[in-house]
Amino acid sequence: MNNYIESLQWRYATKKFDASKKISEEDLNALKEVIRLSASSYGLQPYKVLIIENDDIRKQLQPVSWGQSQIVDASHLIIFCNEINVNDDLIDNYLENVSNTRGVAIEELKDYGDFMKSKITPLTSDAKINWAAKQTYIALGNLLSAAAQLKIDTCPIEGFEPDKYDEILGLKEQGLKSTVAAAIGYRSSEDKTQFFAKVRKSTQELFNTI
Amino acid sequence: MNNYIESLQWRYATKKFDASKKISEEDLNALKEVIRLSASSYGLQPYKVLIIENDDIRKQLQPVSWGQSQIVDASHLIIFCNEINVNDDLIDNYLENVSNTRGVAIEELKDYGDFMKSKITPLTSDAKINWAAKQTYIALGNLLSAAAQLKIDTCPIEGFEPDKYDEILGLKEQGLKSTVAAAIGYRSSEDKTQFFAKVRKSTQELFNTI
Repeated sequence: MNNYIESLQWRYATKKFDASKKISEEDLNALKEVIRLSASSYGLQPYKVLIIENDDIRKQLQPVSWGQSQIVDASHLIIFCNEINVNDDLIDNYLENVSNTRGVAIEELKDYGDFMKSKITPLTSDAKINWAAKQTYIALGNLLSAAAQLKIDTCPIEGFEPDKYDEILGLKEQGLKSTVAAAIGYRSSEDKTQFFAKVRKSTQELFNTI
Repeated sequence: MNNYIESLQWRYATKKFDASKKISEEDLNALKEVIRLSASSYGLQPYKVLIIENDDIRKQLQPVSWGQSQIVDASHLIIFCNEINVNDDLIDNYLENVSNTRGVAIEELKDYGDFMKSKITPLTSDAKINWAAKQTYIALGNLLSAAAQLKIDTCPIEGFEPDKYDEILGLKEQGLKSTVAAAIGYRSSEDKTQFFAKVRKSTQELFNTI
């Protein structure tokens, strides 16, 4: 746990990446597994995760990302995209996965499926998208921590124009909407922000024990 | 990293906690530090975190939490609450913290503060609340992973009536809104779900590399 906390203290939102350094395939696969194993509401994982390596696409994304250099300089750009159509299909696909993974007949899962549907289907379209988007932040939090343990730098990025991302990446056609991104790679020695002290609320301010 | 991934494989949404087992103060403090060090948009941490130990309050929360036993049986109940009033004060408080932590004159931070205000202040009330709520999910994701490394069980909980929580806990008066919760403690040997295989989308299904 000391190591976990030290990693969190080490990490910071990297402003300037060393464009010459690439994450190894082994480390990238480990980070993908961390994202894949992340918790989500009912385990539904109502999202997809894009890993952008292509330089041309990243050059197109940069101007609609407040011009941030991390978009093009980081080793990889990860974009979390939530499902737009949160409907019975999403739940039925999940039930099929449960059935296959656990060797349970699909009929035995019907009541549980109906329960999930009764909770999710009646939500408004906006509420569904917000619910799905929130789940991606669990995976994002997990990614940031796991990367830090590997001494891989990260910059979580909300500062982009989601509609433009959706257009450039053709996401709408895939029933997806870009939610939040993370640039991952290695800090540049020139990034002065790495020397800034971390700013956080005090324990007293943040927590209230009842 | 193997240890990190093994911990994620070990964890599951615990359905039945052993009500006799309590998390040590040392471990609880470590988990609080993990939450406190979690990333958030601009580092603003637009939330508070309640740690509910009181049995009477937990008994009041259970019926408005779909009756889930985790609410009363877990060692601790953590409730993430986002700030309702996302305004200039939140940013000014943050700037004061930056100034104190880094020994920088507050005047030197004015441009950065104005930039943040220009991005956040114009958002609609709903957009602000959603933005703040999403940040709590980063901390939640971090909490789940860190707890697993300590072999502490968790159950993330969205299944509660936020308005009722806000009423019971007097949150509105504090400018807060309950967002998501996590029961933390130790699994009961009787919890059958601990033996179920983990269900996740395949790497092929979840990721798209471009």
